[in-house]
Amino acid sequence: MDTKTWQLSAPGVWRLTIKKPQSITPLSWMNVSPQEKALQQMPQVAPPFDWDRIQLEEAGDSLILSFPLDRTEKLYGTGLQLLRMNQRGRNRYLRVNSDPKQDTGETHAPVPFYISDLGYGVWVDTARIVTMYCGSTMKQEDTQSEEIRDRNSDLGWRATLVASRVEIRLPAEGADVYVFGGPTLADVVSRYNLFCGGGVLPPLWGLGFWHRVPTLYNEQQVMEEAEQFRLHDFPCDVIGLEPGWHSQSYPVTYEWEKSRFPEPEQFVKKMEQNGFRVNLWEHPFVSPKSELYADLKPLSGSHTVWGGLAPDYSLTEAANLYTKQHEQQHVNIGVSGYKLDECDGSELTNNSWMFPGHAKFPSGLDGEQMRQMYGLMFQKMTHDLFRSKNRRTYGLVRASNAAASTMPYVLYSDLYEHKQYIRALCNSSFSGHLWTPEVRRARNAEDWVRRMQTVCFSPLAMLNAWGDGTKPWSFPEVEGVVRHYIKLRMRLLPYLYTAFARYRELGIPPFQAMPFVISPSEIAQAEASAVEAVQQLNTTDAAYGKKKVREWDDQYMVGDALLVAPLVEGEDEREVLLPAGIWYGLETGERYTGGCIIRVQAGLERIPVFVKSGSVIPMTPALPHVPASGTRVPLELVHFGAEPGEGLLYEDDGESFDYEAGKYTWRKLTVTQNSDGEYAGELTGDSEEWISYNSITWRFSQTRLETI
Amino acid sequence: MDTKTWQLSAPGVWRLTIKKPQSITPLSWMNVSPQEKALQQMPQVAPPFDWDRIQLEEAGDSLILSFPLDRTEKLYGTGLQLLRMNQRGRNRYLRVNSDPKQDTGETHAPVPFYISDLGYGVWVDTARIVTMYCGSTMKQEDTQSEEIRDRNSDLGWRATLVASRVEIRLPAEGADVYVFGGPTLADVVSRYNLFCGGGVLPPLWGLGFWHRVPTLYNEQQVMEEAEQFRLHDFPCDVIGLEPGWHSQSYPVTYEWEKSRFPEPEQFVKKMEQNGFRVNLWEHPFVSPKSELYADLKPLSGSHTVWGGLAPDYSLTEAANLYTKQHEQQHVNIGVSGYKLDECDGSELTNNSWMFPGHAKFPSGLDGEQMRQMYGLMFQKMTHDLFRSKNRRTYGLVRASNAAASTMPYVLYSDLYEHKQYIRALCNSSFSGHLWTPEVRRARNAEDWVRRMQTVCFSPLAMLNAWGDGTKPWSFPEVEGVVRHYIKLRMRLLPYLYTAFARYRELGIPPFQAMPFVISPSEIAQAEASAVEAVQQLNTTDAAYGKKKVREWDDQYMVGDALLVAPLVEGEDEREVLLPAGIWYGLETGERYTGGCIIRVQAGLERIPVFVKSGSVIPMTPALPHVPASGTRVPLELVHFGAEPGEGLLYEDDGESFDYEAGKYTWRKLTVTQNSDGEYAGELTGDSEEWISYNSITWRFSQTRLETI
Repeated sequence: MDTKTWQLSAPGVWRLTIKKPQSITPLSWMNVSPQEKALQQMPQVAPPFDWDRIQLEEAGDSLILSFPLDRTEKLYGTGLQLLRMNQRGRNRYLRVNSDPKQDTGETHAPVPFYISDLGYGVWVDTARIVTMYCGSTMKQEDTQSEEIRDRNSDLGWRATLVASRVEIRLPAEGADVYVFGGPTLADVVSRYNLFCGGGVLPPLWGLGFWHRVPTLYNEQQVMEEAEQFRLHDFPCDVIGLEPGWHSQSYPVTYEWEKSRFPEPEQFVKKMEQNGFRVNLWEHPFVSPKSELYADLKPLSGSHTVWGGLAPDYSLTEAANLYTKQHEQQHVNIGVSGYKLDECDGSELTNNSWMFPGHAKFPSGLDGEQMRQMYGLMFQKMTHDLFRSKNRRTYGLVRASNAAASTMPYVLYSDLYEHKQYIRALCNSSFSGHLWTPEVRRARNAEDWVRRMQTVCFSPLAMLNAWGDGTKPWSFPEVEGVVRHYIKLRMRLLPYLYTAFARYRELGIPPFQAMPFVISPSEIAQAEASAVEAVQQLNTTDAAYGKKKVREWDDQYMVGDALLVAPLVEGEDEREVLLPAGIWYGLETGERYTGGCIIRVQAGLERIPVFVKSGSVIPMTPALPHVPASGTRVPLELVHFGAEPGEGLLYEDDGESFDYEAGKYTWRKLTVTQNSDGEYAGELTGDSEEWISYNSITWRFSQTRLETI
Repeated sequence: MDTKTWQLSAPGVWRLTIKKPQSITPLSWMNVSPQEKALQQMPQVAPPFDWDRIQLEEAGDSLILSFPLDRTEKLYGTGLQLLRMNQRGRNRYLRVNSDPKQDTGETHAPVPFYISDLGYGVWVDTARIVTMYCGSTMKQEDTQSEEIRDRNSDLGWRATLVASRVEIRLPAEGADVYVFGGPTLADVVSRYNLFCGGGVLPPLWGLGFWHRVPTLYNEQQVMEEAEQFRLHDFPCDVIGLEPGWHSQSYPVTYEWEKSRFPEPEQFVKKMEQNGFRVNLWEHPFVSPKSELYADLKPLSGSHTVWGGLAPDYSLTEAANLYTKQHEQQHVNIGVSGYKLDECDGSELTNNSWMFPGHAKFPSGLDGEQMRQMYGLMFQKMTHDLFRSKNRRTYGLVRASNAAASTMPYVLYSDLYEHKQYIRALCNSSFSGHLWTPEVRRARNAEDWVRRMQTVCFSPLAMLNAWGDGTKPWSFPEVEGVVRHYIKLRMRLLPYLYTAFARYRELGIPPFQAMPFVISPSEIAQAEASAVEAVQQLNTTDAAYGKKKVREWDDQYMVGDALLVAPLVEGEDEREVLLPAGIWYGLETGERYTGGCIIRVQAGLERIPVFVKSGSVIPMTPALPHVPASGTRVPLELVHFGAEPGEGLLYEDDGESFDYEAGKYTWRKLTVTQNSDGEYAGELTGDSEEWISYNSITWRFSQTRLETI
């Protein structure tokens, strides 16, 4: 194949159209335009390979596109992988799966996009399943005889030879394939996000604390539970309702159950007056008891789920019905957003809880395409609805795909392994996703507090008590620690919000896995010292032996100044890979020299968080909830370390899309030191006028955060 | 579609050819003919449905064939499923998978054949992956609004509605579909086995005890280990060698490593003189160091595995090279058979340990087809090689498919959960497979003895010590119990061998799951009393609630007289579903009235085994190994219970295929009782002449087996 037909699609982004791709794809569905201006400000970059080195072959019904691989290259991304960070050597079967317990590549967000630590990325824009063989296949002509060792006699034998290509199995109908340049891995991801329209900026209240109440609570119980947060001095901004608010669930009606919610409008209003936004759970499958049913029936797929219709929302008529109903019954009375559940069923593991791949939809889409796209469809429809009201929303979704960085949704899972949840937080940063390691319940106080600490340093800090009725204070022995971290999150809101603003404008993820901030060679150095070679004889449990290489998939950056290294139940110390530079324990004040692996200890009262020397962190007091837009609160600018430094602060009204019309302010926070050693802080920005703050306090040369 | 084109293919077997199936399929590859004579002796049966009720639809690239389902019907089979017995309500994605940890349908033996407890079966004969939606999909037109309940308020809500069809996703190219009549479930399976050529009759020595030695043992160490069996008074017939016998492994050479096996021919001969057969481990991937390499290279697939060639054995030339090498270097010097490992890698979970689905083979087959067929190919090639010498073989294989009932191979897995292993033994009986719950190591003496007890009542009783170096006497505190059960197996050889002879002639599996011997209504009765309804509120761990229905997938029949109900570590009692009639505890003598569920206790020294009253069990002394063909030993005919009864006894030379020329004897063992209450035994059969026995002892009206 002539691969010289790659076209420059945006600065540093090249496209190859293979055969005749079907019209609906993640990119086409999202209907976004690249952020050309921001892309042009990125470093100029040449194509990462000679296009000649890319091969396209037909193999039966499918097309195999292959890309060269360097020997030590690592590959990240491929969507929301829960079980590993470096995908090199694995087949990634990128099918949506609500229950991805095995390391097959199936995931809640199956994005056919991998990012090399050499600083380029490859993305296939399709609504179909793609398999990426990330250096896990070896062609005869690429097999080097001299690399084959004897397992019987040679300790150098490895279960996997090093492959020299990525093979990608494309849909038979073809697809648009994109290559993103760097030069760094971080640049590749920013470029991808900007190409997909930039990152999302959530409403400020979305970054507060969330709580979901038990499913059968009525409005009185919900209001009482909300009030308990104020009485217990626990901040809370959002209360989520679970299936019980529907007049029927599994399948659902989208209509309020009158016995539990007789006056929804007043209920939502009262909640708002008390500082709580209301978020509604829903799933895609429409009950015969819903008023939408009759109209949606002819616009739905051939198969039902839980007995409910699976509407074809690629049809404008169906989308309009859904949107209008949601507008009238939820959005217009003040509902703040949704939790979009179960749009991710897997044909394999969940069986009857999803339509099959061969289901037929009136638009001509089949079940495979609809499953891969369903999560995106609901995100887009609800986002557009709120946007039409000039209100931002923020919510949860259990399925996503590519080109979703503009969507105000955070992924979650019914799986619940804490380490996987931390890894998911890291991995979500590679493909324009957000992830919440939501807390539901815990085996004990230790498990509880460790999960609560992690979730407070995540895109959405939520306790989901739908089934178990837990409260943040459910373990009295650690109530104070949990309160402390929820309040710390509230104090950090200006910093977090600024990180999201950079996501919106520059495509820089607000939460980042370590490869974003450490170069391959630095990581390799750290890994070389951390390899635990397990090459004992194969046993019944590990027939092929194992070589354990630490991936540093259990720590991450929040913004550019904070490094978070959570502990899980059973741990009171851990290793941390610290990037070069001077760092301080955010709450311990301990000083570390980075560029190496350190070992830290932390009792239950602490999650290890490190702040980079020279950072300036904007903070506010720990309010019980985000105040109404325009309310001004004190601002504290905290500078860490001995050397001069700088930070950023973004503000806007926090709720609307007026920022698109320029109604926002960027300020640079600069700390200088004069010859007497005295520090001074300076604020420079677009505007003198403050939207959110009424007093400014500088703190210089801190080594630790003052306790609240 | 006109489904009236179903053709009678054999008595009680109908075929529908859809589109143009590809030429290579399990049935075509096995090259077997239906056992017409035995089929004609089965009950006459009409088609199980009006053919009109079967629908064929095109859905994109695939074809969906659907069959009606009754409301309470259960579906068994779909190959070697490890995680459930009744497949109703599940999607079965029938792809070969070496690591089937999730309940997706993937398995070591992905046979698209389901058997209804209403007494019919449906099979798709194809080398491609088939998905069977076993009542797990619901079409809009089949959805009954009145069955949809409200999960919020109705305890009758169920996570899965009852579907009214099986949908089968066929390969795009079409396939031959077969329907098998009953009238009973057992008849369906016998019909399927007879259609595929009948069941396998292993050599008698194959039913003795097997031991596999650590991989790097040399011939001296192997002989010493074998000798230890005699010294410890543990019977043993077969010693298996693991990868270390190859001059290179992973990939392999099929050539003896001279440093460990300098004189293979003498080694095998010495072993045989001491009563041990030698079995050789191998896998499919050919090392550059093998003499076969150069010739096989152009006959191999586009991708290598562990660096080795993946030969295309659908090519006669490749098969001849493999066969000739094996003949000269192994079979001609006395090797008794093979363990065919790793012919089952999964693209999803095992990654680089299998060629990808898009691999291309010189014959035109692709990776998907080759993977689905690879296990069958090796079984057939090696079987044919031994058959050409008029020697029977018996061995292990990790991948199989349909039409394999004539193959002298027993499936196994690297997974190791004891309950799953018992369930696999049950499930293997539905689709013409055999399964060994091989023992490798144990957490403790209890785990050890429980596994050893199970394996002694299985098609292949083996300890696989390749990685851990365990011996049957590894846990001294239970050494006596393990010895007891290995010896009991040796005593039961005439009975076991007779059960296999019925498999060969009548297609009746020697090991059977409970649905073979209890009718749906009896099972339903038992289940009704055993349902533990778990309908508490959904929690974080089981979001959709669970209803636990016992499947009785943890007990099975051995022959038609013995019911085995193993215990696993941590249990000292259990429930047993006893079919109607009078039963005795084989070793306790306790009397039970069947047709209900009983509860039995058994300390470590016992596995619960029950013998049907009226049975006559042929036994021999517990010899250290099966004696050379023609050696005559004492025969004991043990009659159980008070009433008259009967049994069967089959004998032949135990080693060759001469039985095909009529060189075998069936005898009926009849016990009568006269008016004085005295019992008498009578032997009637084709022949007066004995091949294997030199004295006959009758024991009447026993309630328990006399201790050895």
